[in-house]
Amino acid sequence: MSHYSGEQAPHIGTLPAGPLGTIADVDGVSVGHCTLAEGAHQTGVTVIRPHRGDPFVDKVPAAASVINGFGKSIGLVQLDELGTLETPIALTNTFGVGALVEAQIRAAIRANPRIGREWSTVNPLVFECNDGYLNDIQALAITGQHFDEAFDAASSDVAGGAVGAGRGMSCFDLKGGIGTASRVVNTAGHDYTVGALVLANFGRLPMLTIDGTPLGRTLAARAAQAEAADAAARADANASAGKPEQGSIIMIVATDAPLDARQLKRLSLRAAAGLARTGSVYGHGSGDIALAFSTAYTVPHGADFVALPPLVADHGLDPLFRACADSVEQAILDALWSAESVTGRDGHRRLSLRDAVPDLAELLRNPAR
Amino acid sequence: MSHYSGEQAPHIGTLPAGPLGTIADVDGVSVGHCTLAEGAHQTGVTVIRPHRGDPFVDKVPAAASVINGFGKSIGLVQLDELGTLETPIALTNTFGVGALVEAQIRAAIRANPRIGREWSTVNPLVFECNDGYLNDIQALAITGQHFDEAFDAASSDVAGGAVGAGRGMSCFDLKGGIGTASRVVNTAGHDYTVGALVLANFGRLPMLTIDGTPLGRTLAARAAQAEAADAAARADANASAGKPEQGSIIMIVATDAPLDARQLKRLSLRAAAGLARTGSVYGHGSGDIALAFSTAYTVPHGADFVALPPLVADHGLDPLFRACADSVEQAILDALWSAESVTGRDGHRRLSLRDAVPDLAELLRNPAR
Amino acid sequence: MSHYSGEQAPHIGTLPAGPLGTIADVDGVSVGHCTLAEGAHQTGVTVIRPHRGDPFVDKVPAAASVINGFGKSIGLVQLDELGTLETPIALTNTFGVGALVEAQIRAAIRANPRIGREWSTVNPLVFECNDGYLNDIQALAITGQHFDEAFDAASSDVAGGAVGAGRGMSCFDLKGGIGTASRVVNTAGHDYTVGALVLANFGRLPMLTIDGTPLGRTLAARAAQAEAADAAARADANASAGKPEQGSIIMIVATDAPLDARQLKRLSLRAAAGLARTGSVYGHGSGDIALAFSTAYTVPHGADFVALPPLVADHGLDPLFRACADSVEQAILDALWSAESVTGRDGHRRLSLRDAVPDLAELLRNPAR
Amino acid sequence: MSHYSGEQAPHIGTLPAGPLGTIADVDGVSVGHCTLAEGAHQTGVTVIRPHRGDPFVDKVPAAASVINGFGKSIGLVQLDELGTLETPIALTNTFGVGALVEAQIRAAIRANPRIGREWSTVNPLVFECNDGYLNDIQALAITGQHFDEAFDAASSDVAGGAVGAGRGMSCFDLKGGIGTASRVVNTAGHDYTVGALVLANFGRLPMLTIDGTPLGRTLAARAAQAEAADAAARADANASAGKPEQGSIIMIVATDAPLDARQLKRLSLRAAAGLARTGSVYGHGSGDIALAFSTAYTVPHGADFVALPPLVADHGLDPLFRACADSVEQAILDALWSAESVTGRDGHRRLSLRDAVPDLAELLRNPAR
Repeated sequence: MSHYSGEQAPHIGTLPAGPLGTIADVDGVSVGHCTLAEGAHQTGVTVIRPHRGDPFVDKVPAAASVINGFGKSIGLVQLDELGTLETPIALTNTFGVGALVEAQIRAAIRANPRIGREWSTVNPLVFECNDGYLNDIQALAITGQHFDEAFDAASSDVAGGAVGAGRGMSCFDLKGGIGTASRVVNTAGHDYTVGALVLANFGRLPMLTIDGTPLGRTLAARAAQAEAADAAARADANASAGKPEQGSIIMIVATDAPLDARQLKRLSLRAAAGLARTGSVYGHGSGDIALAFSTAYTVPHGADFVALPPLVADHGLDPLFRACADSVEQAILDALWSAESVTGRDGHRRLSLRDAVPDLAELLRNPAR
Repeated sequence: MSHYSGEQAPHIGTLPAGPLGTIADVDGVSVGHCTLAEGAHQTGVTVIRPHRGDPFVDKVPAAASVINGFGKSIGLVQLDELGTLETPIALTNTFGVGALVEAQIRAAIRANPRIGREWSTVNPLVFECNDGYLNDIQALAITGQHFDEAFDAASSDVAGGAVGAGRGMSCFDLKGGIGTASRVVNTAGHDYTVGALVLANFGRLPMLTIDGTPLGRTLAARAAQAEAADAAARADANASAGKPEQGSIIMIVATDAPLDARQLKRLSLRAAAGLARTGSVYGHGSGDIALAFSTAYTVPHGADFVALPPLVADHGLDPLFRACADSVEQAILDALWSAESVTGRDGHRRLSLRDAVPDLAELLRNPAR
Repeated sequence: MSHYSGEQAPHIGTLPAGPLGTIADVDGVSVGHCTLAEGAHQTGVTVIRPHRGDPFVDKVPAAASVINGFGKSIGLVQLDELGTLETPIALTNTFGVGALVEAQIRAAIRANPRIGREWSTVNPLVFECNDGYLNDIQALAITGQHFDEAFDAASSDVAGGAVGAGRGMSCFDLKGGIGTASRVVNTAGHDYTVGALVLANFGRLPMLTIDGTPLGRTLAARAAQAEAADAAARADANASAGKPEQGSIIMIVATDAPLDARQLKRLSLRAAAGLARTGSVYGHGSGDIALAFSTAYTVPHGADFVALPPLVADHGLDPLFRACADSVEQAILDALWSAESVTGRDGHRRLSLRDAVPDLAELLRNPAR
Repeated sequence: MSHYSGEQAPHIGTLPAGPLGTIADVDGVSVGHCTLAEGAHQTGVTVIRPHRGDPFVDKVPAAASVINGFGKSIGLVQLDELGTLETPIALTNTFGVGALVEAQIRAAIRANPRIGREWSTVNPLVFECNDGYLNDIQALAITGQHFDEAFDAASSDVAGGAVGAGRGMSCFDLKGGIGTASRVVNTAGHDYTVGALVLANFGRLPMLTIDGTPLGRTLAARAAQAEAADAAARADANASAGKPEQGSIIMIVATDAPLDARQLKRLSLRAAAGLARTGSVYGHGSGDIALAFSTAYTVPHGADFVALPPLVADHGLDPLFRACADSVEQAILDALWSAESVTGRDGHRRLSLRDAVPDLAELLRNPAR
């Protein structure tokens, strides 16, 4: 029964995935990573390009939902006001945002030297999660160079797991990172694709829920038994349990459906449904932010009027809402399935789901409750 | 294995319920129903009193999250500005809100004759869902008298199911209505109770998920098989599938934890997590609104200063967040388990979950996937 | 110097008004009043129809800004979610909202009998201010009949002052009520009209500022002198000064510029600038709400796709922003200049600005500072 | 008549200023500047410390209102969620935000080495305006060193004008920059101080309004006459008039009144009233953001419970609202009166108000209308 083979994450819901099964199924979207993986530096940068051109020149309709605002993401004030994004979307660790803001500004000026002169400014979009468990985040290792490398690496071949901004991330006390997925839906007689890419760095083990199965409870009980037999491990585990969640998740949702910013805000909020189904209750210390953009049209810089294609009516959004929730849930699982085990600063180690749970397929087929 | 006996809803999560297992586990909270169940009139009013006194005189810290704003609930503008509620919370059908606004105003003036004279006005809180499938909602059958009866009936003995405002509600194409649940948690060394009461009127059958099990898929497949053998039923079902969701859910969350309005807004949003776990993606046509209030203190009308007890620090909120999500999910299941089958206008009929699924316990123990 | 003749309000700013100088300069917009003016009943209903058709069938792009949310206006939750209005805009006193919600529902069902059956519900828009100083608001005198009469009376000949919902309203301790104004601007090579209609019921006398002149200070000083010579008047005045502001202002802004809901939300907020220039600081007890709609296109009920005309780009909005602020400031002055003195319940009396200040023209020409 | 002497800005409104007439009248608040003024580099950093201690250890209740979100300010997502600030407030030019984010992080880690390790992260607050007319903003001249210098320079002796972040700012086509003011009010029997500090970089000349007098119209007409006699100047002016506003204003409001974050959000919005009275309609291209904080108590990092002093009841807020609006309007005038004329990149020059208008006192005493 390949559905729960353990080799790959179970397919969430009943909607079909796109041909790639990644955010790049939305035509024109590309993703690049720059990964730092040396000793205590386990971190990186991921860049999502919404289309093949320059988003400052051809701005992209977009909107975001802040589900829990314990986060330092940058660019949302203007995004919320104007309903467009005008730079690539950059993801990195919490203390790397300053460098990426500057890198985005420099890149935009290089491409459009009138920015900061006769043209207005540029609004850099930078999202972050805290990878401080594995990564020496105090080192502020991220530089503008890493942004440029990730940008240059962008392609429709999207890698997931412990890469790019996901290198040092943890999820449910396991190794997290980048995950991606897509769904194809029909509404109003047209097929549309919804793709998601997440930077997954949230959750404690007992909460982990996979396709409705509360696997985390089983694993936590198992861990407790092991600890009972191992005083040293117990001390460690207690220390861990006492620590507040310092995670976060960034959820980027792309679609080729023609939607305006108001509708994209509605769409982005449905990421919260997919996130909840994995066990999250949007913990206090978790910066849970979703952004949705459409590739169906662009808003040209400086044009006096903005021509839009006919938009999907709001009563036709439900299939897209479902695709968003399913894609985000699937993308979180993809991060867990794709990420390899990583050892970082001070010997801190996060096991991949499959390293941590050798009998994963069996547990999913026959869940204890 | 009583957990999936089918007799009662499975216990969601690992937190214990309070002694009553209802919102009334939060001390001082009481609930009353007035039910109309004659012929085409299948509707009613439910009133939640946040404490035993007059909430206009002793206002209650409260906040709301509009998860999906397709709804006509009343009173949220001022609630959002001032962070208090000053009337009981009234629930009814969509077209009954006008009558209940007026009834709340009349009741407030009776209790406080200075309202509308030297005192300021009163902000009536009225929430609604659309029970138009079972109820002849065009009849506008709800009157102020029904509000008064529900108010007078308020007690800590909270009935659920097809009662009060829940009388005509549908949920996952089954009979929905009123559900309630509670959880007890410890944070910062203190035990606190979180209680939820929902007016559940959302969802289409294929989405139904019970404690992680996608039961709705099984039931929808079964229904499709039956239809294949029954052309008449098929025509009906097709008509139903083509109808947009016109549902909604109102989620009222009470707690005795000392929280301010900002924190209560955070708490209320966690209802979205519980809702998602039952299969909802916050459908376009569903007014999904959560309100949270605290009974730990009141804000006296007219006082120059407001004295607060020490508030739970935000980093201590996670157990309360979990309790909110679990209570709301449990309350939705409670509505499905409690509601009896009802026949309403034009012969429309909603089966209760147990009438519709005689082998419910078996299906939950051995879910097909 | 006709500018400060006192006969009519000074022209605010440098933009020209439309031919009518009212909200009806936006083609298709009409306004009707129903006025109750007998004894203690000094109140009424005002209805704004955004176009000549049925707004449920042809919904109107709209958005609102809650500048201060001490108010009981109804319909904003769904307006905010969907970006359209689907009923006329009704204005009345605070305790009349229940009756008007019901009246709007009944009118919508009459026009569209499928509402509440196979179609979804209708979202009634009702705004209110508290006219309790002049009007016996506890009498709940407003009925659905008054709504129907105001609706039937709607025309492009817009009366202002102590009419309709404005009958019992007070503004700066003077007689307030309905005011209206318009401005014509050019942006992106096109002329557009912005019109405003306000229900002005806010402010205490010392704050009153007319076209930048702090007239209220002069009037308050004059009143204090008079009181020094009149102990009885002083006692009254003290009682009045001790009363909290219970006012509010509703500001409805119409435009024929092609804008979407996000842009209309931006536009609506500029009403706050016009309001501030009259002396308001958005007092705690004042429900200050602005709604903006566009007549440039409609959103047909039930259509699968929504076709929009080319929208004015955001960088072309500044002239419209200015027109909004100026129209709202002008409309507030129009209310003060148009309203006659009114005596209401318990002998309460509000003087019109011109009755209260016989030397108004002189004061405005030579303001003391 | 010293009120309009021209030597100093007229006193706005009727409330008294505090002894210093600056934001430092709120006890404990201090301000430091680092100014770059060499050739094309006309920019800088301003730091506001909310109290004498470490705001990470003793967090400060705070909230913000985004009046127009065309801006790149950083830190508002978490501020909005948690209602506290935990770093000093840093102001700089738009392209300096990256450097200051990093500088704030480094400073916080130096003071609290557990940040990014066992403690959670830190939320740097950085606000910006675009000084690109005078300053070579593309040079990205701001570094962390400038932040440290501004921080170290903080004192209760607050300089205004073309200093710190205000060095390169323009306001109404004149020289803008830093302005500050304060007001003392009594509510609920207690005296409280409200102080404002603005970074004023908004507005076109014709809009300028000083204490209600539309001075800008006079000045613009005068400029037009001069241009009619000077073709070269006309060409310049036309070019200028055609440029979109690229300004912004940051308004920081401090008070010693005991308010919580919800109330501080209400307070911060009243900055919009003061801003409007100077002629702004919150232009499309202007990032208009207000932040308010209270010094009446702090929220200790890591405490399990938060003890608050008795809070001013909401119905006592009106005097504070007025003080906020008046302080902000006064602070904007202070920026105009304090700033010296500055020549920056490419020979661009902004005249101070008094250099541009030698007969300022006369114009204010006898305004043309």
